[in-house]
Amino acid sequence: MMAKGRLYGLGVGPGDPELMTIKALRLLQQAPVVAYLAAKGKKGNALTIVETFLKPEQQTMALIYPVTTEKLPAHLSYETLVSDFYDQSAEQVAAHLDAGRDVAVICEGDPFFYGSFMYIHDRLATRYETEVVPGVCSVLAAASVLGAPLVYRNQNLGILSGVLPEEELKRRLSDLEAAAIMKLGTNFEKVRKVVMDLGLGDRALYVERATMGNQKIVPLAEVDPKSAPYFSIVLVPGKKWQS
Amino acid sequence: MMAKGRLYGLGVGPGDPELMTIKALRLLQQAPVVAYLAAKGKKGNALTIVETFLKPEQQTMALIYPVTTEKLPAHLSYETLVSDFYDQSAEQVAAHLDAGRDVAVICEGDPFFYGSFMYIHDRLATRYETEVVPGVCSVLAAASVLGAPLVYRNQNLGILSGVLPEEELKRRLSDLEAAAIMKLGTNFEKVRKVVMDLGLGDRALYVERATMGNQKIVPLAEVDPKSAPYFSIVLVPGKKWQS
Repeated sequence: MMAKGRLYGLGVGPGDPELMTIKALRLLQQAPVVAYLAAKGKKGNALTIVETFLKPEQQTMALIYPVTTEKLPAHLSYETLVSDFYDQSAEQVAAHLDAGRDVAVICEGDPFFYGSFMYIHDRLATRYETEVVPGVCSVLAAASVLGAPLVYRNQNLGILSGVLPEEELKRRLSDLEAAAIMKLGTNFEKVRKVVMDLGLGDRALYVERATMGNQKIVPLAEVDPKSAPYFSIVLVPGKKWQS
Repeated sequence: MMAKGRLYGLGVGPGDPELMTIKALRLLQQAPVVAYLAAKGKKGNALTIVETFLKPEQQTMALIYPVTTEKLPAHLSYETLVSDFYDQSAEQVAAHLDAGRDVAVICEGDPFFYGSFMYIHDRLATRYETEVVPGVCSVLAAASVLGAPLVYRNQNLGILSGVLPEEELKRRLSDLEAAAIMKLGTNFEKVRKVVMDLGLGDRALYVERATMGNQKIVPLAEVDPKSAPYFSIVLVPGKKWQS
């Protein structure tokens, strides 16, 4: 019987291709099949990060999201659509593995930190040998380009979703010594209001697409809420210790 | 006037030298002076990670912590000892920068995520050109070796310090969809009790020194509290979505 291929989930870092790890690069270039997730009509961040490292003989496999918003016509269920999509994607990956070909699924940032790879992993990791290579996540990329030490000594850090309702976001943020708020986009104005209401405006920092080619750092007060992309982050760094 | 050197804070990742980024490796090898922090009589994790990449002509500079515990005789103040140490360390680094030599301060994990580099940064970043290269942090390294997707969709993640008092740790952990508890060591037994009390024993995972040569994965219930090192982590991964 032919040996099955190995499944790799490769974190390729936050955007700058040089922020890939040596290990992710090695495994990327060894994989006969490189799979990536992307929205319809887009190349996707993960492929953008790795494409200069790919060799002509490597096969790429696009897994295209069926939806770009959670707001759908009433007769469609977001949960079902996305679940079906991951089922199908996992089977496309499995077909290569069954044929003995290793598949590297590339993931922006880290595969297990809000990565789409998690849904492939949950479907295939018990069936195939699987290895996950961690990557630099967007939160730490943001801290680095903002020159903002994030957490000192015994401070607690919260990674919060901008999707949280205003009062809940406020409750959580007020309880933290340091925080990163992700998934902004249409949630930006609400998030900024909460940060300001809590008197954190002086400490908070904002960056769009940290370390990507189109990175943008803007003072939080000056961000146009209509322009804030999903891949932007608000950081509330911990108070400096002995500075 | 001679140009001053540049200060680099290089995240060298969680332990496996291959988990350094391409960028950190490049800047490491270009630096005439490589500084690292270590406890007395120890090589330190950061140097252990990078040493095979160093070239004979590079100068290394050890910055040796004056204390290994926060519990000191009454006449000594931990805060003062450590603050003085960082003042002196910063001046040692500054002497090279003033002489026009770039200095790479290497940091296990990520420089701004509980990294000792933060204290050097706070003292020198306004005086010298400074660049920080983010790294793979220990929390994501732990998730990868445990095969544990950490946070799904809009789940909130808490990075908690094991130093927290029991009730406070319990309060915070019970409010989170996913968590990583760091800084275990002598705090281990308290942390495990809280995890068990909250009924999270089935979900929680434990790893020592993830991706280092002496990595050890043990079921949480079986960990000998006397043996848990400071560099161990308890993860409570988020509940799977559609698995």
